[in-house]
Amino acid sequence: MSNYDYVYMFDCDTEALAAKLAEESRELKDLLGGKGSNLCLMTGNGIPVPQGFVVTTDVCNEYVEGGHKLPDGLEDAVGQAIGRLEEIAGKKFGDPGNPLLLSVRSGAKFSMPGMMDTVLNLGMNDEVAAGMVKLFGDERFVYDAYRRFVMMFGDVVMGVERSKFDECFNKVKAEEGVSDDTKVSAAGLKKVVELEKEVYRAELGEDFPSDPMEQLMDGVRAVFGSWDNPRAISYRNIHKLPHDLGTAVNVQMMVFGNMGDDCGTGVAFTRDPATGEKVMYGDYLVNAQGEDVVAGTRTPVAISELEDAMPEIYAEFVDICDSLEDFYRNMQDVEFTVEKGKLWMLQTSDGKRTAAAAIKIANDLHEEGLIDKAGAVKLVEPDQLDQLLHPQFDISKKPEAVGTGVAASPGAAAGKVVFTAEHAVEAAAEGERVVLVRHETSPEDIAGMAAAQGILTVFGGKTSHAAVVGRQMGKPCVVGCGAIELDFANARFTIGGQTVQEGDYISIDGASGEVMLGDVETADSEIIAVRKGNMKPEESAVYTQFTNIMDWADDIRTMGVRTNADTPDDAALAVALGAEGIGLTRTEHMFFGEDRIINFQRMITSDSDEEMQAAADVLEQYQKDDFYGILKAMDGMPVIIRLLDPPLHEFLPHDPEDQAELAEMTGKTPAQVADLVENMKESNPMLGHRGCRLGVTFPIIYKMQIRAIFDAACQLKKEGFNPIPEVMIPLVSLEGELRICTEYTKDVAAEVMAEAGVEVDYMIGTMIELPRACMVADNIAKMTEFFSFGTNDLTQTAFGFSRDDVEGKFIPAYIAQGVLQISPFESIDINGVGALLAHGTKLGREANPNLEVGICGEHGGEPKSVEFCHNVGLDYVSCSPLRVPIARLAAARAELANPR
Amino acid sequence: MSNYDYVYMFDCDTEALAAKLAEESRELKDLLGGKGSNLCLMTGNGIPVPQGFVVTTDVCNEYVEGGHKLPDGLEDAVGQAIGRLEEIAGKKFGDPGNPLLLSVRSGAKFSMPGMMDTVLNLGMNDEVAAGMVKLFGDERFVYDAYRRFVMMFGDVVMGVERSKFDECFNKVKAEEGVSDDTKVSAAGLKKVVELEKEVYRAELGEDFPSDPMEQLMDGVRAVFGSWDNPRAISYRNIHKLPHDLGTAVNVQMMVFGNMGDDCGTGVAFTRDPATGEKVMYGDYLVNAQGEDVVAGTRTPVAISELEDAMPEIYAEFVDICDSLEDFYRNMQDVEFTVEKGKLWMLQTSDGKRTAAAAIKIANDLHEEGLIDKAGAVKLVEPDQLDQLLHPQFDISKKPEAVGTGVAASPGAAAGKVVFTAEHAVEAAAEGERVVLVRHETSPEDIAGMAAAQGILTVFGGKTSHAAVVGRQMGKPCVVGCGAIELDFANARFTIGGQTVQEGDYISIDGASGEVMLGDVETADSEIIAVRKGNMKPEESAVYTQFTNIMDWADDIRTMGVRTNADTPDDAALAVALGAEGIGLTRTEHMFFGEDRIINFQRMITSDSDEEMQAAADVLEQYQKDDFYGILKAMDGMPVIIRLLDPPLHEFLPHDPEDQAELAEMTGKTPAQVADLVENMKESNPMLGHRGCRLGVTFPIIYKMQIRAIFDAACQLKKEGFNPIPEVMIPLVSLEGELRICTEYTKDVAAEVMAEAGVEVDYMIGTMIELPRACMVADNIAKMTEFFSFGTNDLTQTAFGFSRDDVEGKFIPAYIAQGVLQISPFESIDINGVGALLAHGTKLGREANPNLEVGICGEHGGEPKSVEFCHNVGLDYVSCSPLRVPIARLAAARAELANPR
Repeated sequence: MSNYDYVYMFDCDTEALAAKLAEESRELKDLLGGKGSNLCLMTGNGIPVPQGFVVTTDVCNEYVEGGHKLPDGLEDAVGQAIGRLEEIAGKKFGDPGNPLLLSVRSGAKFSMPGMMDTVLNLGMNDEVAAGMVKLFGDERFVYDAYRRFVMMFGDVVMGVERSKFDECFNKVKAEEGVSDDTKVSAAGLKKVVELEKEVYRAELGEDFPSDPMEQLMDGVRAVFGSWDNPRAISYRNIHKLPHDLGTAVNVQMMVFGNMGDDCGTGVAFTRDPATGEKVMYGDYLVNAQGEDVVAGTRTPVAISELEDAMPEIYAEFVDICDSLEDFYRNMQDVEFTVEKGKLWMLQTSDGKRTAAAAIKIANDLHEEGLIDKAGAVKLVEPDQLDQLLHPQFDISKKPEAVGTGVAASPGAAAGKVVFTAEHAVEAAAEGERVVLVRHETSPEDIAGMAAAQGILTVFGGKTSHAAVVGRQMGKPCVVGCGAIELDFANARFTIGGQTVQEGDYISIDGASGEVMLGDVETADSEIIAVRKGNMKPEESAVYTQFTNIMDWADDIRTMGVRTNADTPDDAALAVALGAEGIGLTRTEHMFFGEDRIINFQRMITSDSDEEMQAAADVLEQYQKDDFYGILKAMDGMPVIIRLLDPPLHEFLPHDPEDQAELAEMTGKTPAQVADLVENMKESNPMLGHRGCRLGVTFPIIYKMQIRAIFDAACQLKKEGFNPIPEVMIPLVSLEGELRICTEYTKDVAAEVMAEAGVEVDYMIGTMIELPRACMVADNIAKMTEFFSFGTNDLTQTAFGFSRDDVEGKFIPAYIAQGVLQISPFESIDINGVGALLAHGTKLGREANPNLEVGICGEHGGEPKSVEFCHNVGLDYVSCSPLRVPIARLAAARAELANPR
Repeated sequence: MSNYDYVYMFDCDTEALAAKLAEESRELKDLLGGKGSNLCLMTGNGIPVPQGFVVTTDVCNEYVEGGHKLPDGLEDAVGQAIGRLEEIAGKKFGDPGNPLLLSVRSGAKFSMPGMMDTVLNLGMNDEVAAGMVKLFGDERFVYDAYRRFVMMFGDVVMGVERSKFDECFNKVKAEEGVSDDTKVSAAGLKKVVELEKEVYRAELGEDFPSDPMEQLMDGVRAVFGSWDNPRAISYRNIHKLPHDLGTAVNVQMMVFGNMGDDCGTGVAFTRDPATGEKVMYGDYLVNAQGEDVVAGTRTPVAISELEDAMPEIYAEFVDICDSLEDFYRNMQDVEFTVEKGKLWMLQTSDGKRTAAAAIKIANDLHEEGLIDKAGAVKLVEPDQLDQLLHPQFDISKKPEAVGTGVAASPGAAAGKVVFTAEHAVEAAAEGERVVLVRHETSPEDIAGMAAAQGILTVFGGKTSHAAVVGRQMGKPCVVGCGAIELDFANARFTIGGQTVQEGDYISIDGASGEVMLGDVETADSEIIAVRKGNMKPEESAVYTQFTNIMDWADDIRTMGVRTNADTPDDAALAVALGAEGIGLTRTEHMFFGEDRIINFQRMITSDSDEEMQAAADVLEQYQKDDFYGILKAMDGMPVIIRLLDPPLHEFLPHDPEDQAELAEMTGKTPAQVADLVENMKESNPMLGHRGCRLGVTFPIIYKMQIRAIFDAACQLKKEGFNPIPEVMIPLVSLEGELRICTEYTKDVAAEVMAEAGVEVDYMIGTMIELPRACMVADNIAKMTEFFSFGTNDLTQTAFGFSRDDVEGKFIPAYIAQGVLQISPFESIDINGVGALLAHGTKLGREANPNLEVGICGEHGGEPKSVEFCHNVGLDYVSCSPLRVPIARLAAARAELANPR
């Protein structure tokens, strides 16, 4: 099945192996796992590593696909490797006279909790133990190792509950009247081994295996089996990792950090993973094995203290760490053991770090000459940048959460609870900070959402209305917090047993989903503070580091980054964060102002064209102001303005009071208005009378918007600005829709420019957001100047998923069952939606080589989706302002991975 | 631009021209139009035709594309043709001494009302008129021809209102005190000409053109312009004709049927177009021009009377008709004129006919040896068969309609009005015929719809719930009858000023959309009567003719035809009509029986798996009976059974009474039930929690259905039948959905068959009805045995059109504006939905060469869609029972047009 040997020794020829793998576009760690390839590489670099061998990930995949059966010949290969290892170590596996003990560890390409970790001291049995006592003379040490091995093997390999083994140890400790592990006698430890073996027999119905080779093959089987366990699967789902990578098994000769005070073990980062500072960072424990450090039963000391305790060892360790950083050109996370004064490196891997650390380390390694700018860009994960941009709680002052919802829009918000959009607006007008709490939000809540510090809803998922608008506004938002019992009638809710009244303070963390009681302090991130001019650049190291990375990313990337922004403020923030234009200005939110909504309602409920036109004329002034502000903020940059998109029904008044007001204004009876509202209801509004369908059936509305756009642009032009409006027609499925709307757009534009006596550069384009549009993109492209893929709607229609309905209802179940790895609303579905997008792009470009193609769905700010857009050859992505840096970085990394 | 001359004389070499056109896959009539090519062909066959020439359709397209400008060189070409015509006729255009007069007529590939028809006597002016008086000595005749010409030219060519010219004539008639046109004096007619010219000048601001060539070119321009007029566009939309065919112009020398009693004119069919009988059928008028026959100002006599009046002419005419039928191998619709004892054929074309006539003529022509079986199949339009299958009103007894709605499901129904499904069921139980009248129907009305003779709704379009279910049930159905004002509270409605109480009789015609008061008599069509055994085959000529055509179609077609049927009765009817299996059994309607619905509700509102399973166990027995009946009716034929598809919400009780009943049964409070119902609501249910999404999240429901299917099949097998169940998993978008559902389907099937101790042949397949499924059809095909394209849902998602919402709201506007030619729910959208279907089929077949691919959307019974399915290579189409013959015939015709 595989082109490779089942097993590789650590001292194998990694260069030859890497070259062979490269022909299949695989890397060393694809075959050997991260841990395994690093052990081989360290060996090759002369670093003291306890020798051993790797069973490859290919074997794991064969094991999984073959219905959990080890492939024929594996045991022979492992036997041969053991033979080689015996030669290297000068010891023999299972030989009481000179026994070789092993550690067995999993090691996938990406480090992954949930998989089987480690079995130590494998190869131990009664005879070996007796032989070791003769050899080392330390009976306590030997039986301690033995009892650990039986427990780990029983627990980790065979799945017996660990507590059952702990009881054996506790029983003996009680008998001996000691509480400290290290105080138990050798005889006591020997007894623990016997008791554990009894547990093993009782639980599994068979004797503890004394054959070392049987132990080893069971261990290998357990590692491979753990690849498939639910925790591992769910980890891969959460981290968007594929399920077919497989894990390798690392078999390594044991070294002992617990043979006395000239022994010890530790873990360390080569730099501070929280701040990125260049200091050795980690823990060390004298006379201990690795698990003691992790288990926390004994308190380790800081790694720096090793310098005093064993200066030579420490110096050697620091040298090795430096050489590892030189080799890997990255900050490392290492494990080591000192056995009787000799340093052994057990493991090294790239260390995880915070965003702040990531940008500092990338800057520092660049300065140290270890990496070039591209290397620096590769060292920062785009997703992490979120942490640096959104306002944050001071972690030291953050109280415990009373509930947790879905983290929908990052950032920290605190304020008084309000339950209606109106109250939010009122309170904000009085200078109050408020958090808007709703069952779920609707477009009528927009003004309230804008006025609030943050939004908290009981229902909804990551792409519910609240979430989408929250992200769009850069507003912290927690949705789907089911722990809230909302008592709307009494203006209060309960959560975690506590009752919160309207006016009480709460705080929400949109990055974690946490809901906290009280007014927790928040602040703009440094980068935003500088960008807003509230802090000087030179005062902020993180700002400088961030700016460097962004500049380098911009030098590298070949795809443009625009923003989705509906207001001049959003637009300005996005430009400050590097946006090169607006990819989407929605015009629907603009109609929710007090004076506007009633005129909008008048327009769409009018009985005649004249009446409709009269209402449209009023709205035109407002719209002109909207567009004036945005075009001015984006002076000299393209601004795509999408004509009205949502179903008209969303704008209609639903409560009797508002209906009465509209009735009075329009001379209808309240019953007539109620009827009208009822008649405009749709069974599936997402698939109803909206987008350019409005443009075809009610051209007055679109013409009003177009006139406002060109009026604003002409005025700016006269004032010496350089507005570049780009009119976008949404939801086109049929060529005729685009033809009709494009024709009158041109007519109105020409008319307005002739009246004003100035010429404005503009374009007309269309959203591609329906599968049919992708299939006839060639016809569409001939009629238009740009495509902007609306991947939210395209995902909805390609899957037949209403995001309002499915995210809460069955997408979580789908992820749990492995049907989906991630919501397709979060990261673009490459095989389906992506295939439609690629098909549409190809057809469109073939028919119109000058066609500009971008994406303005929310995927435009998600790194994997950005990478896909780069690979398909889009001209730009567009995303919400705070995601612009993420998109810039992701685009640069995509270019590095797959140069255009 | 075109590869052809602008102009062809009637005596051109049609064979050479046809051969050249064939190389471009064009026919003679593509270039010359239907009328023009027939005139050329008649000329070639030695039939007496007034000579002339054709300006091609290519010129028309150049004219339209060039912004209504005649191409350079056309006038020269026309001038040369006139020269040739002058030679043939021995007269000269505009020469008072021997004038050539012309008729100018449009002639597109398909005959098309709305386009400019005819201008006669072109070439007339004062000098010519005077010359003609000298030549013929008949001043009355000449000035009658002149005044007709000025009127037609002014009206038809220049667009002056015809009534303005009529006034001139009426004025003179009044002055002379006569009422009969033929009594006006020659001087009077001369005066009419002068008055008409004044009108012309007043209306158009210029003199009536006296230059014959100017008249002719204006005429040509007018014909081309009329191709684009709104009536013509809308005709093409209605008849699904492309807009780029263009029309030809036929210029022909005039012959006169109005020069005395040895003159006349007539129209005739070579066979009876109502019955198909082989008798000459038509009208004749002595001393008249063609327009007099059409205008109805004088009453024509039956064509047979010509035999007495002019026996030689009649004999010649009959001979010519016979030779035309021989030549065209079809019944002809001809126009002719007798000028002073000489017969001229003016036009011939294939005659329109009723369905009954179509099948009789096809049979007769076959018997006469004129056509083979394929030829007979080509002579019957599949759409027409509807007329022969649905019950019909006796046309002589049908009263006038009081209102008209959308003709949604053909057939005639009469019965007492009921307003609720319950009343329908009760009344039907007492043997009453009822018509169910609703605002609109929902799945809860199913039982009532089944019990009713017909369904009438106030709202909804051709694919509303009532329409879809009506067609499915073969139930006459009129929807969207907005003229009804329903007063539900008082159990009555008003329509056309009349009030109808519950219990009053009404009648509806689902083929015409008519609503009539009273109990109009209806009867099964003969074919259905024979198929049901209520009439002997030998008693029904139409049955025999129909059966012949169907048999011949079956011999020809290469694509299978199945039916969509949910009951044994439907299945049996479909088999009698030629279905070769079931392509879709829906299982949702089955749950609406009294006992069933409450258990279904219990199942979907249960709090635990145990409770759900208990309810499912009860339903399983019902389902087994359902499947037993259908599989038995379809013994030996494949039966595709679709697992539950609609959103669960549709099954829940919405009124408090029903909610209380469910509460009592389940031990919940009514408020809890109401909450549950509310929680299960979705904003866009069409894109929500339905189809296989239920199969993944509530496997108990699907497993119950699967068990019932295989239980029924095993029992039948034991009883000696040969059931072939095929389990279909709906709404798959993700590979994992299919994997999960397929796995347990196999498990349950194996389990049931093992229990029963018999083996049943079965298949597992999936609906392909979401764009994503089409894009990943290769992955899906590897996991499954068949695809069935659900083009209803695929159309909804490809377009983003909710058919419930868009059909009434904007599709009519789209058709009116030329954005759509026809609703994509009616005839498959080939470029978009069709492209997805073709893509999915290609990917699927490549990945799994044994994949069976069919279609079960409603398009499966629509001829154009059937043709498309044939062309894409599908294995079968599936449609409602009464459309099975239509699909068989359409499939045969598709094979003839494009052999596999």
